[in-house]
Amino acid sequence: MLVVAALGGNALLKRGEPLTAAAQRANVQVAVRALADIVRAGHRLVITHGNGPQVGLLALQGAAYRPDEAYPLDVLGAETEGMIGYMIEQELENALDHDRPVATLLTQVVVDPRDPAFARPTKFVGPVYEQAEAERRAAAAGWQIARDGDKWRRVVPSPRPLEIPGLRVLQLLLAQGVVVVCTGGGGIPVLRREDGSMIGVEAVIDKDAASALLARQLGADALLLLTDVDGVYRDYGTDAATPVHELTVAQAREMDLPAGSMGPKLAAACDFAESGGISGIGRLVDAVAILEGTAGTRVSADA
Amino acid sequence: MLVVAALGGNALLKRGEPLTAAAQRANVQVAVRALADIVRAGHRLVITHGNGPQVGLLALQGAAYRPDEAYPLDVLGAETEGMIGYMIEQELENALDHDRPVATLLTQVVVDPRDPAFARPTKFVGPVYEQAEAERRAAAAGWQIARDGDKWRRVVPSPRPLEIPGLRVLQLLLAQGVVVVCTGGGGIPVLRREDGSMIGVEAVIDKDAASALLARQLGADALLLLTDVDGVYRDYGTDAATPVHELTVAQAREMDLPAGSMGPKLAAACDFAESGGISGIGRLVDAVAILEGTAGTRVSADA
Repeated sequence: MLVVAALGGNALLKRGEPLTAAAQRANVQVAVRALADIVRAGHRLVITHGNGPQVGLLALQGAAYRPDEAYPLDVLGAETEGMIGYMIEQELENALDHDRPVATLLTQVVVDPRDPAFARPTKFVGPVYEQAEAERRAAAAGWQIARDGDKWRRVVPSPRPLEIPGLRVLQLLLAQGVVVVCTGGGGIPVLRREDGSMIGVEAVIDKDAASALLARQLGADALLLLTDVDGVYRDYGTDAATPVHELTVAQAREMDLPAGSMGPKLAAACDFAESGGISGIGRLVDAVAILEGTAGTRVSADA
Repeated sequence: MLVVAALGGNALLKRGEPLTAAAQRANVQVAVRALADIVRAGHRLVITHGNGPQVGLLALQGAAYRPDEAYPLDVLGAETEGMIGYMIEQELENALDHDRPVATLLTQVVVDPRDPAFARPTKFVGPVYEQAEAERRAAAAGWQIARDGDKWRRVVPSPRPLEIPGLRVLQLLLAQGVVVVCTGGGGIPVLRREDGSMIGVEAVIDKDAASALLARQLGADALLLLTDVDGVYRDYGTDAATPVHELTVAQAREMDLPAGSMGPKLAAACDFAESGGISGIGRLVDAVAILEGTAGTRVSADA
């Protein structure tokens, strides 16, 4: 099978952990064990990953040094593709005893300049703050902010991914048995201008949505959305919480999950399952079991 | 021909220019015109680039935010491969009217842990300082510093590049007509441990030396070391300065050029020319003319 595995931010950084290089590497070393299992099970593999905490960190570092020379989000996104891709590539090669080549490709993803997200930023980047502190920083740096639980965070536009121009290059590598890390952080957001040229834009693309697009355009057999929760629950957070193992797209679309939880993952799972593949949501350590149908939540096309 | 073109730091940032995203992009837009000319002349092309100012900037940004959580140089190098590679890839695709795919590959480069460079750091990274300021920063951050002209800068180890593990992936892409940006900043320096696994190391690899290794391992026809000077001069900086258009390796090895000027470029040119290819040194805008032998300095094997 051709498998697209999307690593959630929590697979790279535990909730509340400091964002040091050492902490990231330690988490990557755990994450690649599950990824190596997918390869050893005989599957071709494309790995995508989140970058929310990392892109936030780079923005804070830049602001601490020279606030008037802030780098735009497309460039920061490219930096995080380098940082995170390097660690995943190196540690996965180590986990596979250097038997299989792993390559990291920078990935631009085209979005629509008329996407309504540009007028209404919703994607959290960077750390949480108390409201007063968030408002002070927003005023100083020109951020927009929004509530995240009982704290506040910077929000940026999250337009819908439309096209992955580097798809053909990715296909060339997959055809030759290369494991590819790409579309990190949902890809580097770019606009196509009237003359056909591309230019980066201040946005962050949802990693699960971009991974679903990638899996569809590749004709993948399975899309794994991997996180630190073991699947989708009905009535999550209540005494009546019930794990759900199998869903059709129609059943999944009927579930009403909050935006901050499994909502975006389930929407991405539906987008891909509609194209005929199997989507799976669950814990990173269960990756192979989700593929085999013995763990997590699987979403498939309506019969 | 298969051409490896190495962009000097001055091709991405003019001397004295502030290191903003806008300044880098403007310089990249100029640089890609010369690179597009190489592709349009019918050659296959691999692009490498420097990262001295950029890796220094990222280190300063990190130190300004949380000095006790400094990211190691391998990770910062990976970030710069993302940042710079993205801009080159996007602008070169634009310059080629999206007729040819351009891909950016993260590149690890193996160095020897016993390389004497680890005991004697010599590679400049980051901005220049007055001596007192450099000494203050060195004491605070654990840097080593050295004189650069009449100023002082941070220096880091620059071990000799030995092996490029991602070579096979790069060859797959070149065979399919993809223009590849790789080995940025001389590559991400890694050590091979006794068990065969790889781990990053605090160092920066000379971009020209890594480009020569890459060109040799690829069996390239030409290596272009592109900068803002129009070639090698005898008696450079004196009234007797004379441009040199053709050199054999033996003639080139006899020239005594200062380490901070053309010395490392000429050494890299010799390393590659010894393998039978043509090395060229000169201005970025003259890239095609250097290939044709009508500009710059060319170094070829002894007859």
